[in-house]
Amino acid sequence: MTSTRLEAFSDGVIAIIITIMVLELRPPHITELAALRPLLPVFLSYAMSFVFVGIYWSNHHHLFQVVEHVNGGVLWANLYLLFWLSLIPFVTAWIGETHFAAWPVALYGAVLVMAAIAYTIMTRALLSIHAGDSVLATALGRDFKGKISITINVVAVPLAFVKPWISCAMYVVVAMIWLVPDRRIERTVVSTAE
Amino acid sequence: MTSTRLEAFSDGVIAIIITIMVLELRPPHITELAALRPLLPVFLSYAMSFVFVGIYWSNHHHLFQVVEHVNGGVLWANLYLLFWLSLIPFVTAWIGETHFAAWPVALYGAVLVMAAIAYTIMTRALLSIHAGDSVLATALGRDFKGKISITINVVAVPLAFVKPWISCAMYVVVAMIWLVPDRRIERTVVSTAE
Amino acid sequence: MTSTRLEAFSDGVIAIIITIMVLELRPPHITELAALRPLLPVFLSYAMSFVFVGIYWSNHHHLFQVVEHVNGGVLWANLYLLFWLSLIPFVTAWIGETHFAAWPVALYGAVLVMAAIAYTIMTRALLSIHAGDSVLATALGRDFKGKISITINVVAVPLAFVKPWISCAMYVVVAMIWLVPDRRIERTVVSTAE
Amino acid sequence: MTSTRLEAFSDGVIAIIITIMVLELRPPHITELAALRPLLPVFLSYAMSFVFVGIYWSNHHHLFQVVEHVNGGVLWANLYLLFWLSLIPFVTAWIGETHFAAWPVALYGAVLVMAAIAYTIMTRALLSIHAGDSVLATALGRDFKGKISITINVVAVPLAFVKPWISCAMYVVVAMIWLVPDRRIERTVVSTAE
Repeated sequence: MTSTRLEAFSDGVIAIIITIMVLELRPPHITELAALRPLLPVFLSYAMSFVFVGIYWSNHHHLFQVVEHVNGGVLWANLYLLFWLSLIPFVTAWIGETHFAAWPVALYGAVLVMAAIAYTIMTRALLSIHAGDSVLATALGRDFKGKISITINVVAVPLAFVKPWISCAMYVVVAMIWLVPDRRIERTVVSTAE
Repeated sequence: MTSTRLEAFSDGVIAIIITIMVLELRPPHITELAALRPLLPVFLSYAMSFVFVGIYWSNHHHLFQVVEHVNGGVLWANLYLLFWLSLIPFVTAWIGETHFAAWPVALYGAVLVMAAIAYTIMTRALLSIHAGDSVLATALGRDFKGKISITINVVAVPLAFVKPWISCAMYVVVAMIWLVPDRRIERTVVSTAE
Repeated sequence: MTSTRLEAFSDGVIAIIITIMVLELRPPHITELAALRPLLPVFLSYAMSFVFVGIYWSNHHHLFQVVEHVNGGVLWANLYLLFWLSLIPFVTAWIGETHFAAWPVALYGAVLVMAAIAYTIMTRALLSIHAGDSVLATALGRDFKGKISITINVVAVPLAFVKPWISCAMYVVVAMIWLVPDRRIERTVVSTAE
Repeated sequence: MTSTRLEAFSDGVIAIIITIMVLELRPPHITELAALRPLLPVFLSYAMSFVFVGIYWSNHHHLFQVVEHVNGGVLWANLYLLFWLSLIPFVTAWIGETHFAAWPVALYGAVLVMAAIAYTIMTRALLSIHAGDSVLATALGRDFKGKISITINVVAVPLAFVKPWISCAMYVVVAMIWLVPDRRIERTVVSTAE
């Protein structure tokens, strides 16, 4: 079973997730620039979530470059990942609406953790149907970035009740780690091609 | 006529159906965790529908792996299926809004039954343009899972007026039956490849 | 220039158009079945538009099966078609909201006429870059169905001010004409393949 | 790394952006034609933005015809472009809501400028991984159209505070420049194929 449709369907869902978040940016009825100030937290939460969803798309893209085949289990692991990603617009809107209050920021982090776990489950499901010396297995390696980012996010969630901005800063750090796209895969593809 | 665009279009429609349901989860204006409690039935109905739409996508995916060609009749049978699936967000929202009341739960089941019938019609349309010994015909076989799940859902609809949770439990049983992806097809593909 | 992306993009836009119309079906707050009665015109207008948009997708699909290449002019003719199709959710919602009143029904027909003209323009743009004896040119022929359906719709628009249901009946007649998918193309493909 | 998924994902996001703008066209509750008059600015701003987003899609399509491969940097340059395009529905709605007032029209132009810069960044990212004598490099050339249109839009932004229609006229001029699709690429492809 090839991954063509899994990729196309995921692209569709992620494209919609990333786009409907902008619907929270309701145009003000007033024509002054000051009318946009209350929209600033909404805009910031949108930009933050855009980056996170973009990271998932980029990693998903890199990952499936080296996937040789999928099965029913992978389809469902992928759907489980999409389920958690689909909750990002909701927590983003709650953050924007409440101007980065403690509970919304904590819940945001919890959704990020669940999505990261779902991503890990999906890579496990893929590894279980690929040989130990496949490009996929070599490229994923010990998954250091995956483990460190889940750890940071797990720690960030309770810190929202100390100061929400601390959690947000930690989410941004995780984003930084990933903004460098998964070089493991690019590197492995190149080295195995040599 | 190949099924490439039929699959791409269906992926698009299903991706949108599965994603717009989350728009019902409106962020509360209050920042307390208790503000999320009224959203619980909305969340549960979303999760349930996500699984059902996911099952249709997964089965659709499996089915079209063994489809050799399509015709105008199949295009319309598929559109008819998508029409009923497109009503799932509406009945899901009604269930969430009314906290799983009798009529909404019954209507939800009725839409599931109509979608299942539409799926059966589509498989018939496909069988009529494939040879009796094609992989498709062998894989579909007697369609036991299709028949049993329509039967369970037909029984579940009136039971909503006894207790809505009985119907919901039966919908979940049907989901269980399908969560195991259509092994018939995976098995047949493997055995015919041997 | 191949038509792959033109088809993928059109599939995406049409999938969204066909799906967002269902958002007009707002779930009632009441749990009784009677609460659905006011939604009946909304549902009917949705079903009617679903069929029309489905016809455009099906014809688009058939047409591009025999397209050999596209150019910038075809891209824009296609975008112009998508523009008019994108107005269908608006006129559909107006019809549903006003329970099939005269002006909304007339405007609905006008949008259908504009979409049909845009489709004709697109086929002209395609013919201008295909040989006179290409499969496309043979398949399109004299475009009898296209001409008759534009004529019926043009007549139907003013009749909305006599009785809106007359116009609607005529729109349905046009749908009937097209529900039989464009056999010209299927037939031509088969005969040229022989 | 091929650009297949980058193109599919961009098609999805752009299809959604172009389609959700029409959701601002809310159907009036009154059945008279006069009820549509207040919707005229909303419709005009929709049509204008449809053309701009269409131009980006058409240019994106032309550009990726000659792209040979992509890397992580191009993925993110493309996401950055999509981010700015995703703000077009917001500024379009603000323009429509405020009937082309000064600040909204200026902000609209600013978003166009940012999108144009993002597009330029993406072409740079592509050039950096293609040979100097590649079809891509030859086709892009000195990018005269890109530079002139950014210049016009930068000048148009402050002019919104003189008269908003002056800015709009200048945006339309830029659209005119691009409506002629990127012949550079079509021409280069033809000439290198010879």
